[in-house]
Amino acid sequence: MRLPKKVHIMEVGPRDGFQAEHDWIPTEQKIEILNALSRTGLSEIQATSFVHPKAVPQLRDAEEVMAKVTRVPGVRYQALVPNMKGLQRAMACGVDGVHLMMSVTEAHNRSNANRSIEDSFKEFEQMVPVAQAAGIKVEAGMACVFGCPFEGEVPMEQLDRIITRYREMGIAQMSLGDTIGVANPRQTYDTCCHLRDKFPDVHWTMHMHNTRDMALANAVAAMQAGMTSFDGAVGGLGGCPYAPGATGNVATEDLANMMAEMGVETGVDLDALILVAKRVKEVVNHRLDSCMVTAGRRTDLKVAPACQQKLG
Amino acid sequence: MRLPKKVHIMEVGPRDGFQAEHDWIPTEQKIEILNALSRTGLSEIQATSFVHPKAVPQLRDAEEVMAKVTRVPGVRYQALVPNMKGLQRAMACGVDGVHLMMSVTEAHNRSNANRSIEDSFKEFEQMVPVAQAAGIKVEAGMACVFGCPFEGEVPMEQLDRIITRYREMGIAQMSLGDTIGVANPRQTYDTCCHLRDKFPDVHWTMHMHNTRDMALANAVAAMQAGMTSFDGAVGGLGGCPYAPGATGNVATEDLANMMAEMGVETGVDLDALILVAKRVKEVVNHRLDSCMVTAGRRTDLKVAPACQQKLG
Repeated sequence: MRLPKKVHIMEVGPRDGFQAEHDWIPTEQKIEILNALSRTGLSEIQATSFVHPKAVPQLRDAEEVMAKVTRVPGVRYQALVPNMKGLQRAMACGVDGVHLMMSVTEAHNRSNANRSIEDSFKEFEQMVPVAQAAGIKVEAGMACVFGCPFEGEVPMEQLDRIITRYREMGIAQMSLGDTIGVANPRQTYDTCCHLRDKFPDVHWTMHMHNTRDMALANAVAAMQAGMTSFDGAVGGLGGCPYAPGATGNVATEDLANMMAEMGVETGVDLDALILVAKRVKEVVNHRLDSCMVTAGRRTDLKVAPACQQKLG
Repeated sequence: MRLPKKVHIMEVGPRDGFQAEHDWIPTEQKIEILNALSRTGLSEIQATSFVHPKAVPQLRDAEEVMAKVTRVPGVRYQALVPNMKGLQRAMACGVDGVHLMMSVTEAHNRSNANRSIEDSFKEFEQMVPVAQAAGIKVEAGMACVFGCPFEGEVPMEQLDRIITRYREMGIAQMSLGDTIGVANPRQTYDTCCHLRDKFPDVHWTMHMHNTRDMALANAVAAMQAGMTSFDGAVGGLGGCPYAPGATGNVATEDLANMMAEMGVETGVDLDALILVAKRVKEVVNHRLDSCMVTAGRRTDLKVAPACQQKLG
């Protein structure tokens, strides 16, 4: 099995995870989690989102979080910015990178960003030179790449058009979001091969949700197609914990565990990351979709006598 | 991505799942589930286990279950048999196939079967000719193939020895159990390639638990290594639902969904199977590790307005 020697993992839980939490997470707890994540060997963390406080009340403390987090050398702190105002706020906080987000289908982009794809692009075309002039790394995110809840299948030509437009802005870092967790390994492999060949100078990040339990299988398929960067959310946060059927990002610790088990380097201290995930469980106070939190690592193996499988 | 055109799925929930349930499942409900499973297009079901009633009280109704189930033509009903007594009981019930089970490590076999590997083999060597003479298909199961809670890593030579011994009994159907859910895709791929090459006349079944979320990734890796048969348990039953950290077999409906999404034929009516899984949830009355029960198929896509991701 041909896999890369090393992959990059970006932690997105403090943004994509926290934003989905129903109950307010106190700012000091957000900072505590961010600080703990910063000491796990992760080299990039999506720390918050500079969106309108009314749109995402949970992240209304973005400035305070960025001001108070203890930045660890070697860790890049990225933030999602929806518009010029958000970019300006993020830049004032000294973020290392910004994440633009657009859905690749009109219906989903209108539903989430309340504007057309064209209007998103017009906004981004204003923002990108500003960020680039300030030396801030820009990552262009694409949501619903592998399927849209409103439009269903996404034609590859639609992806190509959006990526081409991003390339024309000088963006070389893009993330492929399986926002609603519908991608399958064959589709992931085929899509990644196509994009890798068509846009050889783009660096891709896979952003997989585990809604249908295929996130890790998709990660392997993506690696087989040459991809080497992955998003994960500590504790498997994300989605909408109070809505039946919605599940979150692939848990960073489950992703990192699989990589470690396969001998693919991530730089992550898995035991430290699992401890953070356990603390996240206390903070959000609900069940997590995290096998490492529930079952532990292979090296933790033990079987309680009452639970030994009765095989004979 | 090279995948087989078609795979075989055996449903093991009525045995490997039900046996792990704490609360008694009434015989008529077991039969109801078995009858419903029989109408989903599955061609093989592990229906029960003819073990000592004190060892597995939940399956003490094996005879009654086999007598009362409505057998559907084209569906094979298999049962686990630990010893000659169990085999005789199973044969009296007219099972279509029997499943022998042995752990590939001494420590786990002693813990589960209360005997050494050698003693298991001696028993099997008595049983197999009896079953074969009666025209009953024999499948040799191996537990802890990818790791043991007591002994850790399992040397490939140990696997080879056990498989060779099974082959000498004339058994050509064997299942590779990741009993405690520690296998990773690279290990699965390497192990399957090794066994496929070393024992080309054996037909293999993959029996993966999803304890560390890698079961579907392992299934893809196994297919890439040429494997075409998989076990699953409806609803992701199995393990020990009341022990923290224990999780069950890969959910048959999640496995079948992945296959369907990738265009790999299973013969399973996925919607019918999901309905059975939902009924199983009512019967066992606890949370299931089943994405199809929780999230539904890709084709069920819908996003509640309150749960739309706030991306910008």
